[in-house]
Amino acid sequence: MLSDLELLKASIPGISAKLRELRAQNADEAFISEQQQKLADTNRRIAALLKGSGENDSKKAKITLKTPKGTRDWTPIEMSIREHIFSTLTRVFKAHGGCTIDTPVFELREILAGKYGEDSKLIYDLQDQGGELCSLRYDLTVPFARFLAMNSAQYPAIKRYHIAKVYRRDAPAMTKGRMREFYQCDFDIAGSFDPMLPDSEVLVILCEALTALEVGDYTVKINHRKILDGIFEVCGVPAEKIRTISSAVDKLDKLPWSEVKREMTEDKGLDPVVADQIGEFVKLKGGSELVQTLESSRLAQNRSAQAGIADMKLLFSYLDVFGITSKMSFDMSLARGLDYYTGLIYEAVVEGSAPPPLTDATTTTNTNADTAMKTIISKSKLKKSIATASSGEDPQNNAEEEEIDESQVGVGSIAAGGRYDELVGMFMGAGSSDPKKKEKGIPCVGVSVGVERVFSILMAKEKEKAAQGGFRGVGRKSATEVYVMSVGGGLLIERMEIVKELWAAGIKAEFAYKVKPKLPKQFETVDKEQIPFVVIIGGDEIKEGTVRVKEQKGKEASTGEGEKIPRTEMVRWLKEKIVGV
Amino acid sequence: MLSDLELLKASIPGISAKLRELRAQNADEAFISEQQQKLADTNRRIAALLKGSGENDSKKAKITLKTPKGTRDWTPIEMSIREHIFSTLTRVFKAHGGCTIDTPVFELREILAGKYGEDSKLIYDLQDQGGELCSLRYDLTVPFARFLAMNSAQYPAIKRYHIAKVYRRDAPAMTKGRMREFYQCDFDIAGSFDPMLPDSEVLVILCEALTALEVGDYTVKINHRKILDGIFEVCGVPAEKIRTISSAVDKLDKLPWSEVKREMTEDKGLDPVVADQIGEFVKLKGGSELVQTLESSRLAQNRSAQAGIADMKLLFSYLDVFGITSKMSFDMSLARGLDYYTGLIYEAVVEGSAPPPLTDATTTTNTNADTAMKTIISKSKLKKSIATASSGEDPQNNAEEEEIDESQVGVGSIAAGGRYDELVGMFMGAGSSDPKKKEKGIPCVGVSVGVERVFSILMAKEKEKAAQGGFRGVGRKSATEVYVMSVGGGLLIERMEIVKELWAAGIKAEFAYKVKPKLPKQFETVDKEQIPFVVIIGGDEIKEGTVRVKEQKGKEASTGEGEKIPRTEMVRWLKEKIVGV
Repeated sequence: MLSDLELLKASIPGISAKLRELRAQNADEAFISEQQQKLADTNRRIAALLKGSGENDSKKAKITLKTPKGTRDWTPIEMSIREHIFSTLTRVFKAHGGCTIDTPVFELREILAGKYGEDSKLIYDLQDQGGELCSLRYDLTVPFARFLAMNSAQYPAIKRYHIAKVYRRDAPAMTKGRMREFYQCDFDIAGSFDPMLPDSEVLVILCEALTALEVGDYTVKINHRKILDGIFEVCGVPAEKIRTISSAVDKLDKLPWSEVKREMTEDKGLDPVVADQIGEFVKLKGGSELVQTLESSRLAQNRSAQAGIADMKLLFSYLDVFGITSKMSFDMSLARGLDYYTGLIYEAVVEGSAPPPLTDATTTTNTNADTAMKTIISKSKLKKSIATASSGEDPQNNAEEEEIDESQVGVGSIAAGGRYDELVGMFMGAGSSDPKKKEKGIPCVGVSVGVERVFSILMAKEKEKAAQGGFRGVGRKSATEVYVMSVGGGLLIERMEIVKELWAAGIKAEFAYKVKPKLPKQFETVDKEQIPFVVIIGGDEIKEGTVRVKEQKGKEASTGEGEKIPRTEMVRWLKEKIVGV
Repeated sequence: MLSDLELLKASIPGISAKLRELRAQNADEAFISEQQQKLADTNRRIAALLKGSGENDSKKAKITLKTPKGTRDWTPIEMSIREHIFSTLTRVFKAHGGCTIDTPVFELREILAGKYGEDSKLIYDLQDQGGELCSLRYDLTVPFARFLAMNSAQYPAIKRYHIAKVYRRDAPAMTKGRMREFYQCDFDIAGSFDPMLPDSEVLVILCEALTALEVGDYTVKINHRKILDGIFEVCGVPAEKIRTISSAVDKLDKLPWSEVKREMTEDKGLDPVVADQIGEFVKLKGGSELVQTLESSRLAQNRSAQAGIADMKLLFSYLDVFGITSKMSFDMSLARGLDYYTGLIYEAVVEGSAPPPLTDATTTTNTNADTAMKTIISKSKLKKSIATASSGEDPQNNAEEEEIDESQVGVGSIAAGGRYDELVGMFMGAGSSDPKKKEKGIPCVGVSVGVERVFSILMAKEKEKAAQGGFRGVGRKSATEVYVMSVGGGLLIERMEIVKELWAAGIKAEFAYKVKPKLPKQFETVDKEQIPFVVIIGGDEIKEGTVRVKEQKGKEASTGEGEKIPRTEMVRWLKEKIVGV
């Protein structure tokens, strides 16, 4: 018992220090609160140990008050920011003819099977309680494809958005905002259309969305799967290695070329000469001029690359019309992990969160990069040791947290997507005995906005605003406009009559649930909830048929007496003022 | 093989007939589509059987394209109705100072344990994949109580609403809108306040919500747990039988007294004299005058009943001020199933969906009621036999559907709730080693609106509107305001430039994803999507710097040529018109 106690006590300064450090770094709220919870847990367990046998007595009633690992609650202020994000995105999607659908949070297990490659191990299964075998959805794309395959006659073409939670049994990385339950926000255009038209509109939507969300400057990296395939063919990558080499290329935004090349050759057995040839292509970056470069390169001889280059050329001409070419970066290292992409692919990165520059393979810089990696890994280990020391969980369960802490290399991409022309067909072929149907399917192109990352950025901004005193942005707990209060004798019925009148007029109003509330208490509520207006009544006002109305602007103004107006003018006065807020 | 085939073929006319019958009855969309799916499945299986060995060949690719039992997809038009419901409710909640929180879709299993009595068997568990044991949430109240217990310092008082999905492994009854995945929409006021003030505001909110949702005339049945407890004490119900007798009383809205009395005495062993005494009280119904009746009855001597009567008296005085007394029915048979209620309880019933009148225990009417019940049960059996014959599911699994089909007795209550002062304390006591904390807790009162039932009512209304030709209500697929089209030569770039201008002006606009779209095809889209305005360009307009603008009102108007205006006037013209729509 005592050694347990010593261990627990010893872990406290470490957690506390980590907490201070995190606060100083403006770390993610969720991770801080997780650490706080651990600290509280530790303290509680120490108290229990000190009580000795007392712990056993209360054991029956002991429930751990927490949310499951990798999940969290969202407070009212956080929710008001989340709602702001969702309504902003919805407005953009609707401006482009988007409609929304909803699918169940769990699907038949076989629907998800074989869609996510290695990541299938991250799928949450429901327990077999006698019935169908089901799993929580892993993304919104596969359910959408299943929906289209089931309803292809009614929806041969559709622009749909879907904002909903998805589930992955991943190692939670709270600092990065990576959770096991998180929102995805997808916009997809399904249907057979002329080339690159829906693709260019999806990019317009992406740009409008990021601009409207005010996440800061951003760049959209674009590339084409068929060009990548062409590169691999031209350079002579064996067919069976294309997938794994492609995933190595995709790491070029986080790792230097030397490291990617090492992975290709040492880990994946690629001929170094072939790797270097790939390197010449995938290091290329630029704008529409890169299309000409590729047209005059040896890639132009390859059939797959040809098709991809033609697409990119057409795309750039459309993006010019829409005026968003300057936001694009044709980045030939962009490969995207998912198997189902078949054409254009893209990924948006916000400037503030771009990965730190990682230099190329030269002797000295290579060492620097290695040092950086070691620092990152040791930070990750620190995190792990805190988690293990302070939580009651099986340490083995925590082992999965030992990984590169991606928060150290920026929040990464904030949105991503691409064209996937065959996913719906996979389901349609599967359900039908007609082999021709499989080839048909419904072509799709879409984008997924990383709303959790958007949330982290906006929450940080809100906190800055709060620190500067003004906290009247999206981050207010409730939307109440008027607080109705009394001076002196309570006047409960009179207050109720006034709020009733305000509600009927569409004004958001509250009053104290007290028969005789004290004035300072009422003003306290107004300040705490940042309610912009108050209506005050006292004995005099009731006699005269008047009310006092007052705009609240911070605590300074709350001492004033307000303006006395006829009760009959109250609603009009408030409505005029509220519009101006 | 052949007998399988015969069986399947034989089931088709039955399903088809059932489908026609359901259509004629204006049955629930979800149930119809479920039957349609079964029909399609049956046809597919017949095709496979006819092909003989062909089925085995394609077996590997065979995935059943469906959603799990008791769940469904929501189409864009359904979603626009759902969004209308959610935004209406949110507006009402916010007018009363409501804020929202979110909790994870699954909770630690021990959080849910012991909260739902017998219904705990309906909880969905997640599979143990090495980690914590979790279950899908069963309602939003227990997670809210868990949230409050964890954050009592920060939120000693809160008005929160939560609109989210919950999960119950119940027997799905699609016709009634009862699903295994469904939305709940809760508004709760937590905190220690003067008596009946939050309670009366919750009832105001409920009335405002039902009025705003336009579900038709409604009545709110109200009662008080302490009065019920008093009745049971005064009549001499043994303490250990109170819970089970209370649940029998709650059935008085669906069953005649004779049946309820039979359950109390024959099934539950209550003395018939005691049962008759209870009957005298629980058959009472009325308005505030019932308070006086009770005050002068022998109930007034009972301490528990006294407290409840005083609450009801105060409540009615507040409801008078708020002007909603006429909507209330003080119904002493209302008991509400959940254990955690401690005070006022209520349930709203819409007139259109009230249960059919069930008469009291006299010889002849009793027979009628029995006949009615038998009809209901045989309808349920019919449903079951269809399901078993046409689906590939284990018939045993379908056995759970054999129950009284509640759709036959109306949709039942549309909203319900009450006061629960001890639930949060259960968690606070559980988490803390301080036994005093348990008693404290946070008192709560709340209401849950049955949004799935509201949906059924509004969807039926939308269909009526559609049948009458005008389908421009909430039930439009997308919100697109303007469709930009060309006559003649395609004019793709010009169309793109126009939509770009419209998007920038905040106008919702679409265009055909075709280089050279045909005019009739473009008008077809406008009609199908019911887009209210079109902008038309042709060679002449481009030369002149003009556009044709046109309001679309059904197919008749679509033949007109529209109005030619300068291109520079386009946005202004459209904005003026759109406001008027």
